[in-house]
Amino acid sequence: MTSGSTALGHFRDRVDRALRDFIGQQRGVLLAAGEDLRPGAESIAGLLAGGKRLRPAFCYWGWRGAGGPDCPEIITAAAALELLHAHRQFEARHAGRRWHGSAEAFGMGMAILLGDLLLCWTDEMFQASGLPADALRRGRPVLDRMRTEVFAGQYLDLLGQAAGDETLSGALRVVELKTTKYTIERPLHLGAALAGGSADPVGGDGPLAAAYTAYGLPLGVAFQLRDDILGVFGDPAQTGKPAGDDVREGKRTVLLAIARERATAGQAQVIDGYLGDPLLDETGTAEVRAAITATGAVAECERMIGRRVSEAIAALEGAPMTGEASEALAELAVAATARDG
Amino acid sequence: MTSGSTALGHFRDRVDRALRDFIGQQRGVLLAAGEDLRPGAESIAGLLAGGKRLRPAFCYWGWRGAGGPDCPEIITAAAALELLHAHRQFEARHAGRRWHGSAEAFGMGMAILLGDLLLCWTDEMFQASGLPADALRRGRPVLDRMRTEVFAGQYLDLLGQAAGDETLSGALRVVELKTTKYTIERPLHLGAALAGGSADPVGGDGPLAAAYTAYGLPLGVAFQLRDDILGVFGDPAQTGKPAGDDVREGKRTVLLAIARERATAGQAQVIDGYLGDPLLDETGTAEVRAAITATGAVAECERMIGRRVSEAIAALEGAPMTGEASEALAELAVAATARDG
Repeated sequence: MTSGSTALGHFRDRVDRALRDFIGQQRGVLLAAGEDLRPGAESIAGLLAGGKRLRPAFCYWGWRGAGGPDCPEIITAAAALELLHAHRQFEARHAGRRWHGSAEAFGMGMAILLGDLLLCWTDEMFQASGLPADALRRGRPVLDRMRTEVFAGQYLDLLGQAAGDETLSGALRVVELKTTKYTIERPLHLGAALAGGSADPVGGDGPLAAAYTAYGLPLGVAFQLRDDILGVFGDPAQTGKPAGDDVREGKRTVLLAIARERATAGQAQVIDGYLGDPLLDETGTAEVRAAITATGAVAECERMIGRRVSEAIAALEGAPMTGEASEALAELAVAATARDG
Repeated sequence: MTSGSTALGHFRDRVDRALRDFIGQQRGVLLAAGEDLRPGAESIAGLLAGGKRLRPAFCYWGWRGAGGPDCPEIITAAAALELLHAHRQFEARHAGRRWHGSAEAFGMGMAILLGDLLLCWTDEMFQASGLPADALRRGRPVLDRMRTEVFAGQYLDLLGQAAGDETLSGALRVVELKTTKYTIERPLHLGAALAGGSADPVGGDGPLAAAYTAYGLPLGVAFQLRDDILGVFGDPAQTGKPAGDDVREGKRTVLLAIARERATAGQAQVIDGYLGDPLLDETGTAEVRAAITATGAVAECERMIGRRVSEAIAALEGAPMTGEASEALAELAVAATARDG
């Protein structure tokens, strides 16, 4: 979300506040068990500070688009998605590392525990949002399905990495489960279900759920492609991750799959030589960036992003939602895929 | 639970069936994401087969004791606690290991993912149990508190292990959070809350919740002491774990804390020499067992178990619950702490 958008910035402040309130209550529960739990509580609070709050934004506008009113309860329910996301970040940070030595085993144990807590709190915050029991009952299957799908995506991703699957189709399948549904389509469906705007949101039935899917699928791919580009070319000051991190981790991204398909033998040698190299330095990053750019993969990804964002915005036209929601979703589509990450 | 008890054996069958039904549905969701998810689904089903179903039993009798009727819905809600427990077993099996090499990083990633799925499914099964919305709303804070407490206990346990805290008081504090509340007190409170039998079950207010606590606290310690003894002296065929596993892992158990307090210099040398030794073999196990027994710690633990079980059963007398529930809980107290594990 760009800071230029006041409406989206204001929304982010409301989500931040809901998260601070919830974490504040939980801190009390943790400290009652022991003062030595304070560092754990602080580390969760730190992880939750900042972030674009994209998933809550899609959930909120999914609700508004279905005719739900603006109210604090939907902000709290939507903010719960940030706890699920923070859990995934803990996991991503630690699952790929190779642990040895007792200090690191300890660090990993702590990270798993704190991640588990965040996962449990997702439900707790959602259920305690203050939305009516009827609304929660309608929303629950979407939240459940969303979580099972994202785990299925992570599972397939791990499996593909282990099997050395570097095809474009393999990468796109993981994108659909891990990003598209999780970041955009299911949050929208969740909002719609909470507002009572869809008969069977899990199945995607009904004109509103279908419109959200038609908007969410291309936008999800565009969002992931932007993430792929930032993962190789992004500025650490903006992304919060070291330069060239995706190359260092050997991630099977769509960008890299396209680059590999188009690479000359020489370019492929450079890319494959650095891919998954934990010692990748600045010089190596510059070399691999140049090789990827030279394949034309970056330009191709930028074209794909532009096309997908246009498709997403076009899907909003004539969809059965308020003009306000339609405008906000168009704005979100641009903000979620902006070059400044 | 001993197989001699038909009532408890019958209960276990009902829990098994509820779990099989739930996992069967989830398998469908996973396989819809990809046929290659089948091994993951099978491994979850395998982990859930067997087990004493103690936590569901305490939840069920907490409900019955509060006047709730026997019905399939409470069995399903209670069975959800087994998913939480299976999650912890995945974690225990993997968090303490030292991982290196990509095959093992892959195994750990998978274990974390499957554990996460089980954690999410705890909520899903609980919410989809078919109990009325009112009942679920009353039970939810207990389930939430139970999970936060067990994570606090695991956190303190990790912290204590890293800090080398080998005191009896440190070990008992972890037992209270990790075992007593989690295995006995909170499942009973959950059943009571679902049945509407307690005004503030999280706080333990009201005569029924107080009786459950008075029963649960000593029984939890007895249960953990039995587990401590089995962890050093248990038969692998019965415990499902290698002989002397707690010694190999260097667990900070109450049994070991007592043994260390009472040990002569020579006994302490044997115990400390083997504690945490990943290569502990049969000869070493026999030596360390002999040293622990010679300190008198095992006899002391057996005395503590007997005393605590009597205390728990005494707390049932005059408690405001049906005679049937009181008898079942007395039977459960004996079964949960029996020597045959």
